Amino acid sequence: MTQTREDFEARLRKIGAERYHDLHPFHTLLHDGGCSADQVRAWVINRYYYQHTIPMKDAAFMSRVEDPALRRAWRSRMEDHDGTAENEGGIRRWMRLAEAVGLDPDYVASRKGVLAGTRFACDAYLHFVREKSLLEAVASSLTELFAPKIHANRIEGLLKNYDFADDSSLSYFQTRLKEAPKDVAFGLAWVLDHADTAEKQDAAANALAFKTDVLWAQLDALWGAYVEPARIPPGAWQPGEGLLLKRAS
Amino acid sequence: MTQTREDFEARLRKIGAERYHDLHPFHTLLHDGGCSADQVRAWVINRYYYQHTIPMKDAAFMSRVEDPALRRAWRSRMEDHDGTAENEGGIRRWMRLAEAVGLDPDYVASRKGVLAGTRFACDAYLHFVREKSLLEAVASSLTELFAPKIHANRIEGLLKNYDFADDSSLSYFQTRLKEAPKDVAFGLAWVLDHADTAEKQDAAANALAFKTDVLWAQLDALWGAYVEPARIPPGAWQPGEGLLLKRAS
Repeated sequence: MTQTREDFEARLRKIGAERYHDLHPFHTLLHDGGCSADQVRAWVINRYYYQHTIPMKDAAFMSRVEDPALRRAWRSRMEDHDGTAENEGGIRRWMRLAEAVGLDPDYVASRKGVLAGTRFACDAYLHFVREKSLLEAVASSLTELFAPKIHANRIEGLLKNYDFADDSSLSYFQTRLKEAPKDVAFGLAWVLDHADTAEKQDAAANALAFKTDVLWAQLDALWGAYVEPARIPPGAWQPGEGLLLKRAS
Repeated sequence: MTQTREDFEARLRKIGAERYHDLHPFHTLLHDGGCSADQVRAWVINRYYYQHTIPMKDAAFMSRVEDPALRRAWRSRMEDHDGTAENEGGIRRWMRLAEAVGLDPDYVASRKGVLAGTRFACDAYLHFVREKSLLEAVASSLTELFAPKIHANRIEGLLKNYDFADDSSLSYFQTRLKEAPKDVAFGLAWVLDHADTAEKQDAAANALAFKTDVLWAQLDALWGAYVEPARIPPGAWQPGEGLLLKRAS
């Protein structure tokens, strides 16, 4: 039976409460100051692959949208990540974090050493958006409903617990705090408007659950590779690789 | 510089020696009898997703092949998995293993509870074969070069260490011991014939390394979820689910 708009929204929010990656133990470790410098670096290298994927995902979505108004509304997401004349964009901001933790941004940008589990999860998201219905593609973006809380916790926890953390290195998260709410308000309204049958509501809810899997699986891969007992898979980043050579001071 | 046929074959075999999943600690645990019944079940449920993917991968490959002779040579792989009038096929044989470890084959076939990490890895393989060159697709199948050894070890280890193991429950592996060598002899010759530039040799070697990642990442996901300290992700199989109801004896 088709749910009311309110009940369906509550169902989507419950998926976040039960499955969003703020519940993963890696985030507790990171935000509480329990990560070594190399564990933070491993997170920055792997999470970059996700940042790298997002604008491709948004372009794939727009390539399938026939309504110019929807494409226009969506395009700001690419601008937020890739930048504009006025805005350096999220990908460059991520590189400031990379430098602050001692990584060579060129190494991070090369995506060498990214865990297979990270690549497969992010690529799954890209393929999902290429192949599924537009409703499912938009619904899969709604993990941003749950992002402001984790970003606020992260900024607070990193500032408190790590020397590398300051306004410049954390500007990615500061900026996302402002950007994500406008994106998700649009996306949520669009999903609530378009999921007008029980079948579509199920598809949208499953798409959101899929996306929580994409995020969770990245942290599982990171945990297995770099948290005790660490088992770094063949070909993945080894501590010491990709470091920034310090300029003589 | 283009390698000689012999050097290039040696390079491919070295990738297996360094990256094939026989080196993963889960296989040591499994083959040495160290897995609990639930850990064996988790492996059977998750590995089924790989079995489920393989014939789709082979069909995707054939859908891109314009040479009828190559399609004909490849088609036997689908017959080996999906079965023929005379041959039950690998997927049904896998279900005998599932029943032998106490799982409901309908549950296993539903693919509920499969780890996100497993799905993303197997789906990555399917997308790889859909999107990359035919040479890379064939090269990615060459992990079968390394399979007979692991299958022989597995049969020996399971028979020795687990009550469920017998000729019927292990028939999948017994049969693969016969099937894989013919497939891989064809695939290896095809890759050696067609990788006739340094660039193509690099692409083929990278494709084989990618496939070892696909296999390794599945075991990493399994280990993280079900081996101590187990952290079962949201939505994944919980011990006790999907069990076969025993008939009254």
